[in-house]
Amino acid sequence: MQKEEYMKKALIQAAKAAENDEVPIGAVIVNPQTGEIIAEAANAGAHSGDATSHAEISVIRQACAKLKTTRLWDMDMYVTLEPCTMCAAAISFARIRKLYFGAYDEKGGGVVNGVKFYDSPTCHHKPEIEGGICAAECSDILKKFFRSKR
Amino acid sequence: MQKEEYMKKALIQAAKAAENDEVPIGAVIVNPQTGEIIAEAANAGAHSGDATSHAEISVIRQACAKLKTTRLWDMDMYVTLEPCTMCAAAISFARIRKLYFGAYDEKGGGVVNGVKFYDSPTCHHKPEIEGGICAAECSDILKKFFRSKR
Repeated sequence: MQKEEYMKKALIQAAKAAENDEVPIGAVIVNPQTGEIIAEAANAGAHSGDATSHAEISVIRQACAKLKTTRLWDMDMYVTLEPCTMCAAAISFARIRKLYFGAYDEKGGGVVNGVKFYDSPTCHHKPEIEGGICAAECSDILKKFFRSKR
Repeated sequence: MQKEEYMKKALIQAAKAAENDEVPIGAVIVNPQTGEIIAEAANAGAHSGDATSHAEISVIRQACAKLKTTRLWDMDMYVTLEPCTMCAAAISFARIRKLYFGAYDEKGGGVVNGVKFYDSPTCHHKPEIEGGICAAECSDILKKFFRSKR
């Protein structure tokens, strides 16, 4: 599959989040060698009773559990929104090979916005990064969700 | 109890981590109004099969589950080492009132070292901060652990 197709899988997770009245963000972890989708997760911050259950954290936990490792060296992550600082650092700890994200997040992002964690000397693994994949679609689902909340 | 006594509770968790061959870091969450310890957790990064299971993340998850909320507004956290960037951001998301930490972490910290997340405009809740509580003891348990690994 192409990167846009994987991002569509992440968008399906984002739509699931919206159905649960959660901010629509989704993530998948893929083995780029085989094309296999290892794990998929929707943001569940509000209703899970867990302040840390962003889509990226959940999908890392699932992939670690499935592959029985804490080091996802050869795996790629697709996420619909630029990861926040917490998730950017978690992606580094999990040793993700390449991070693909959709929309940019000036207010809360920690990759190319905010603290730009991967450029800090306290970051000990920097994934490859490609932003803006299906960015309009990833942004639209968020805008639609927040409009419905007003 | 005094803050040093709560830090000793976090140190007990750190010692449990060491027993499990994990980097000895421990955390507790306390209700400062009642003095009740809400949750306690040891770092479990290496053997849990979860790259995100730092003591701070685990103790937040437990406290959220126990109190049935993602917002720990009136709660304080005691942790033996300055939180990393991931955990500093998680503490902000969980709306912890005050963060007490033990040893400072120049290499991996994200509070007063590294990205200093709480000073970023992408940080939307800044806890009160007090570092250096039982710092020597918190540092010694780490040094002893790493010496034993050489």
